[in-house]
Amino acid sequence: MANNYAAVLYGPSDLRIEKLPMPEINDNEVLIKIDCCGICGSDLKIYSTGKCGLVNLTEPVILGHEGAGVVVKMGSKVAGLAVGDRVAIEPTQPCRSCELCRCGRYNLCYDPNYCSTPGSPGNLCQYYKHVADYCHKIPDNLSMEEGAAVQPLAIAIHACNRAGVKIGSTLVVLGAGPIGVLCAMTARAMGATKILLTDVVESRLKTAKKLGADHTLLVKKEYSDEEVVARITDTLGTAPDITVDACGFASAQRVAMMVTRSGGTVLVVGIGAESVQVPLTGALLREVDVRGAYRLLNSYPQALAAVSSGAIDLKSFITHHFPLQKSKEAMEFAKTGEPMKIIIHM
Amino acid sequence: MANNYAAVLYGPSDLRIEKLPMPEINDNEVLIKIDCCGICGSDLKIYSTGKCGLVNLTEPVILGHEGAGVVVKMGSKVAGLAVGDRVAIEPTQPCRSCELCRCGRYNLCYDPNYCSTPGSPGNLCQYYKHVADYCHKIPDNLSMEEGAAVQPLAIAIHACNRAGVKIGSTLVVLGAGPIGVLCAMTARAMGATKILLTDVVESRLKTAKKLGADHTLLVKKEYSDEEVVARITDTLGTAPDITVDACGFASAQRVAMMVTRSGGTVLVVGIGAESVQVPLTGALLREVDVRGAYRLLNSYPQALAAVSSGAIDLKSFITHHFPLQKSKEAMEFAKTGEPMKIIIHM
Amino acid sequence: MANNYAAVLYGPSDLRIEKLPMPEINDNEVLIKIDCCGICGSDLKIYSTGKCGLVNLTEPVILGHEGAGVVVKMGSKVAGLAVGDRVAIEPTQPCRSCELCRCGRYNLCYDPNYCSTPGSPGNLCQYYKHVADYCHKIPDNLSMEEGAAVQPLAIAIHACNRAGVKIGSTLVVLGAGPIGVLCAMTARAMGATKILLTDVVESRLKTAKKLGADHTLLVKKEYSDEEVVARITDTLGTAPDITVDACGFASAQRVAMMVTRSGGTVLVVGIGAESVQVPLTGALLREVDVRGAYRLLNSYPQALAAVSSGAIDLKSFITHHFPLQKSKEAMEFAKTGEPMKIIIHM
Amino acid sequence: MANNYAAVLYGPSDLRIEKLPMPEINDNEVLIKIDCCGICGSDLKIYSTGKCGLVNLTEPVILGHEGAGVVVKMGSKVAGLAVGDRVAIEPTQPCRSCELCRCGRYNLCYDPNYCSTPGSPGNLCQYYKHVADYCHKIPDNLSMEEGAAVQPLAIAIHACNRAGVKIGSTLVVLGAGPIGVLCAMTARAMGATKILLTDVVESRLKTAKKLGADHTLLVKKEYSDEEVVARITDTLGTAPDITVDACGFASAQRVAMMVTRSGGTVLVVGIGAESVQVPLTGALLREVDVRGAYRLLNSYPQALAAVSSGAIDLKSFITHHFPLQKSKEAMEFAKTGEPMKIIIHM
Repeated sequence: MANNYAAVLYGPSDLRIEKLPMPEINDNEVLIKIDCCGICGSDLKIYSTGKCGLVNLTEPVILGHEGAGVVVKMGSKVAGLAVGDRVAIEPTQPCRSCELCRCGRYNLCYDPNYCSTPGSPGNLCQYYKHVADYCHKIPDNLSMEEGAAVQPLAIAIHACNRAGVKIGSTLVVLGAGPIGVLCAMTARAMGATKILLTDVVESRLKTAKKLGADHTLLVKKEYSDEEVVARITDTLGTAPDITVDACGFASAQRVAMMVTRSGGTVLVVGIGAESVQVPLTGALLREVDVRGAYRLLNSYPQALAAVSSGAIDLKSFITHHFPLQKSKEAMEFAKTGEPMKIIIHM
Repeated sequence: MANNYAAVLYGPSDLRIEKLPMPEINDNEVLIKIDCCGICGSDLKIYSTGKCGLVNLTEPVILGHEGAGVVVKMGSKVAGLAVGDRVAIEPTQPCRSCELCRCGRYNLCYDPNYCSTPGSPGNLCQYYKHVADYCHKIPDNLSMEEGAAVQPLAIAIHACNRAGVKIGSTLVVLGAGPIGVLCAMTARAMGATKILLTDVVESRLKTAKKLGADHTLLVKKEYSDEEVVARITDTLGTAPDITVDACGFASAQRVAMMVTRSGGTVLVVGIGAESVQVPLTGALLREVDVRGAYRLLNSYPQALAAVSSGAIDLKSFITHHFPLQKSKEAMEFAKTGEPMKIIIHM
Repeated sequence: MANNYAAVLYGPSDLRIEKLPMPEINDNEVLIKIDCCGICGSDLKIYSTGKCGLVNLTEPVILGHEGAGVVVKMGSKVAGLAVGDRVAIEPTQPCRSCELCRCGRYNLCYDPNYCSTPGSPGNLCQYYKHVADYCHKIPDNLSMEEGAAVQPLAIAIHACNRAGVKIGSTLVVLGAGPIGVLCAMTARAMGATKILLTDVVESRLKTAKKLGADHTLLVKKEYSDEEVVARITDTLGTAPDITVDACGFASAQRVAMMVTRSGGTVLVVGIGAESVQVPLTGALLREVDVRGAYRLLNSYPQALAAVSSGAIDLKSFITHHFPLQKSKEAMEFAKTGEPMKIIIHM
Repeated sequence: MANNYAAVLYGPSDLRIEKLPMPEINDNEVLIKIDCCGICGSDLKIYSTGKCGLVNLTEPVILGHEGAGVVVKMGSKVAGLAVGDRVAIEPTQPCRSCELCRCGRYNLCYDPNYCSTPGSPGNLCQYYKHVADYCHKIPDNLSMEEGAAVQPLAIAIHACNRAGVKIGSTLVVLGAGPIGVLCAMTARAMGATKILLTDVVESRLKTAKKLGADHTLLVKKEYSDEEVVARITDTLGTAPDITVDACGFASAQRVAMMVTRSGGTVLVVGIGAESVQVPLTGALLREVDVRGAYRLLNSYPQALAAVSSGAIDLKSFITHHFPLQKSKEAMEFAKTGEPMKIIIHM
């Protein structure tokens, strides 16, 4: 019988490769031989600090929530999948019963069983089980790595859906990390016609420009919020309709609230500090809506379709590869902020 | 020829009754003999400090933006009104040309000519001119005072529209001043089934309960934000779908962000401090939308219809009356926070 | 052990009282001792013709989908309910897995297991099992009959939600049967300020007026569509924002498309003929949206809250009562079109 | 002084080139030296029949509502434009005062003064005056012809906005004429990932495929509605989220209502027969919304930005050119259905 090695996080910076028992599936689940799994900013945050957003590492968990693999076994009631299917794993298994699930906002489910949170194993393992209807078939013209990288794209699509990106929108994205860049790529695919990305690291802006930003702005430490706002509107020739905070800094949220045009939207997709000092009143008096986007919602099918149709190109977004055994090295390398998307291969 | 006395604000607490020339109307305007005009919190703020929200008192202005009166003269191109008509004056004259006017958000117009702001006279005068199509006929079964009080109701309706109040909504309103109480009354008329009002002044809560709150909570100085949140959810037996901040305190905004259920809405209608320290991240991660409501938008017809049909009763909302000559006394009395709605009669 | 008598429909007009086995529950279900169950237009249609909307009577089914009762047994995983709880049964058990369930439109589920359709027993029986989270606790201040009658109210609320009823809306409801009247009552509770109901039967209009219509119009056979339109706008003094077709006649749909104001909504809640001849172009050129409302969606909690708070009064809506043994008599009496709401008691 | 020749339609097929007086502008208007103007299906309809949609030719009118030109004179109150600016003329001058203008739906204005309707001259002339704020500066990287062709694109964008096209949408467009093809191109730019166009003329489908359709279907006369539906779903492998009727045939509307997935949208942009026989009930029971898109709304800026950014390429869409003097020949040629977009040059 096959082995099942996994990358288990025991505490900050304490990531161990361990042999685990083979998962047993129930009627509605499938067993997946994981092929690869992406690493993202929230993995890094929980790896570094044992905490991320609303999640605390109260027990050891298998890391990873950007997995793709092949179905090797199916529960008796599973329909629409077959052994041998390549699937992208939507990393949630919501309760389907709470008021939020019922009204179509399962990303806010009170009991989501989200991969790689206490009680819910992640995908950095060789064999993983998941409820079948949250496994999405990967179109034939996508690689496994693209199937894995669809997860952060689905995050970005949910963010852009929540932000209300339209054809002709002018967009600013604060933070040119993976999610920021994917938000820009998604907004472009949704028809945004003018996109500016900012970052504090110049090399990221170069990548951003290559992947689709019209304009970039290097934010220097000495800039005041007002100066950043002025530079953005000068560059765009107008105030943006939408500003996406994809870094979570309080200063980004301040700039977002100040720079967005009246009646526009500030969308926060990064996880920020618990408490922030912000010029909220000035934004609300101009009916700038402040919204968050949490995880993803019904955006896996959208993401897979967008990559398959060529609307969004994930290939150049995937920059580095590591084997499962070197997961710790991958996490440490991720800390440098240099890689756009790291894929771990099982 | 008739005189035209007006209450002109020259600076903080410097309100003078002056005789002004009779306004001359153009083709699209009507001349209105003002009957009465309400006094509101923003009048009080600008009277006290010379500043309110986005507005600064850079020159003397006639106060008042809750006026009602009788049409006495009409421009040559005016249709739909006649001399003798009783009208409620929607206190704005937007440009109708900017992108915001064009997309139906004239309350955010860049050049709104809002009554009682620099360059745009207010209604605390005997004769006042206004563009005809922003004057709304008062239904026969409403008094002039109710016609005036329709303005804050239209503010509350715009706030509840922006908040997305639905049948069955559970609502918390922070601040039981005039706008807070009107928001509760409006929400009730829109089908909200559980409404809790809070305030720091006990007498206001008594009025609130009389006018329609299901529950009230007296917020004591010694309560922490967490304690207020706990008391609200204990009283309601649930987290509210919508929390309206109708007082503008940073503490109210903090409580609103913490207490609202996942996927719900925080609606700010009060004007707060420029910069606030708030637990924004926790709200955004639960996709609690934070929105402002600025002035009013297409809600005069809704307000007039709601009062005329009996859905909302403004009579008990109007509590005090003063003559124009005693406008300063009215402002000073308003400062006590005791009156719900003061009406000045010309 | 208790008996379980039920009213089983074998074919058009062939309704039999039969003794059935006691249902066995699984982990997520509850067993309910049914107290009473309402009879509605779609029961009548399937009783009379063996067909209703998208449903065909391909095998005998227990009738009834407006049931209320007491929980007598609970599955091991059921939370939030207790033996002895009085519950209103939301008559659906959707798959929770299809794209429509997942995006919060479970009323359109491809496999809804809706009560009283082939394969899914109805509530006209003494013991009935149902998935627990679609059973809603009846508030203490509601009777069992009101608990049952909440079902058609939830239909009406869904219809008014889909129609976009707002405070100040002007509404026409075509058809003063139970659903039409409940739509009017719901619209009123949501803030509609002018409501006109039409019918071809004068006695129904009297009831409608008593239950809350501002205006009624008796539609005579000799009236042309244009004449009905003219009478409606004459009575209202304006074109309605929203027209609800609650009868399903092609003539009603024609009138609805013609009478609704530009930019308004035609909402069809009745089940009409398969193919209709309608002036669709004229409506669409004026951007009058034509929408249907199918069954109900997340509106049970809204309905229960609205009745409990007093926003909607169902007591006078319930007009007739029959025992289970006389179900056939109840159906035949319903055919007369005279009763508003019949309740069958077990 | 310059001459002002214009193409004036006196009645069906009676189009005359006449010399007209130079227009005189008021304070808010600009005088435009027209460079070119596109011809569209509604021009053709009114040229052929003297009637189109809600418009009747009750007096001679200058044809043309897709004009582009150069500002040669400005009213005293005009801001944001300068003599010499190249502008695309949004062919409406709404009242800005009715309830529909005020709520941001000026395309439904009761008094729109739409170009080339009785009382409102069209653009097929050498000098034309228009209210300044409905003239949009043409970006430097667009030709005048593209500036003219932005009008039908703005129609298509409004249609896709109303249809709710999203990233990942599957779309069927019935009718591969200019508007149908532009709807497909727009939907693609908004992120639609699977687009099928149908037509009864094979040559149009070839163009459609070149301009961006993923799939095409030649609809043969002998096909029943059911057969067309089956061929569409077979080709797509699914039912479409959105079906756009861009031809106005009753059969297209029938197919649209049948083929669209539950919860989807049928969007009609073509002008159909006054009365149609359609399977409306089946669509409404599945909550397929039926909506129209009338003219255009705030979509000129979106269209200009989309062409300027390269999101949409209009160059291959413009297929034929005629001089003003040969306007009649252009109309007759248009009747053949062969040309995609004809531009008339002044």
